[in-house]
Amino acid sequence: MRLKYDPQGLIPAVVQDAATREVLMVAWMNDAALQLTRDTGEAHFWSRSRSRLWHKGATSGNIQKVHQIRVDCDQDTLLLLVEPAGPACHTGERTCFYRPLGDHFAR
Amino acid sequence: MRLKYDPQGLIPAVVQDAATREVLMVAWMNDAALQLTRDTGEAHFWSRSRSRLWHKGATSGNIQKVHQIRVDCDQDTLLLLVEPAGPACHTGERTCFYRPLGDHFAR
Repeated sequence: MRLKYDPQGLIPAVVQDAATREVLMVAWMNDAALQLTRDTGEAHFWSRSRSRLWHKGATSGNIQKVHQIRVDCDQDTLLLLVEPAGPACHTGERTCFYRPLGDHFAR
Repeated sequence: MRLKYDPQGLIPAVVQDAATREVLMVAWMNDAALQLTRDTGEAHFWSRSRSRLWHKGATSGNIQKVHQIRVDCDQDTLLLLVEPAGPACHTGERTCFYRPLGDHFAR
């Protein structure tokens, strides 16, 4: 199955808790991050802000054990079902989506 | 809360079934799509392939009633909790993520 990477060689990955079904985060993968994820069974991403491979939890300890990787119909997005060792968010929240979008937002 | 749109003025939106917690699809929104979604309570996106606003379900009838919109920690991704009127995927599958990524994939 051929994945469709964007012009930067990246594909978005939605990370979902395999047990609670909570959506934890969205990050980006390049080919190397996907390969490392498959080889190690732990989520790896490409950090766009730091321009480098990122082993999720390498410093925080909050690794994500990957149970399954799914792909969408047009093969340009991945879904990782994971078992997280701790909070997904750098703020300490369990999920990065901890806030509802308020009534006021930039248009 | 100021959202971070990408250079094309888009922000990715993960769509999750509010009841089953299944991840249904990922699509893109621009400011107008988000505004329409909030104004109508039904999911609207920006179709990158057709370069136009896209009222999900306008032709198929499979609209998505939006229960809540959540935003991630760095404000560059949205999560829509929806009540879908039918399959999210154009293939007729309930979710676009109907396939596990096989062992063989383009590297």
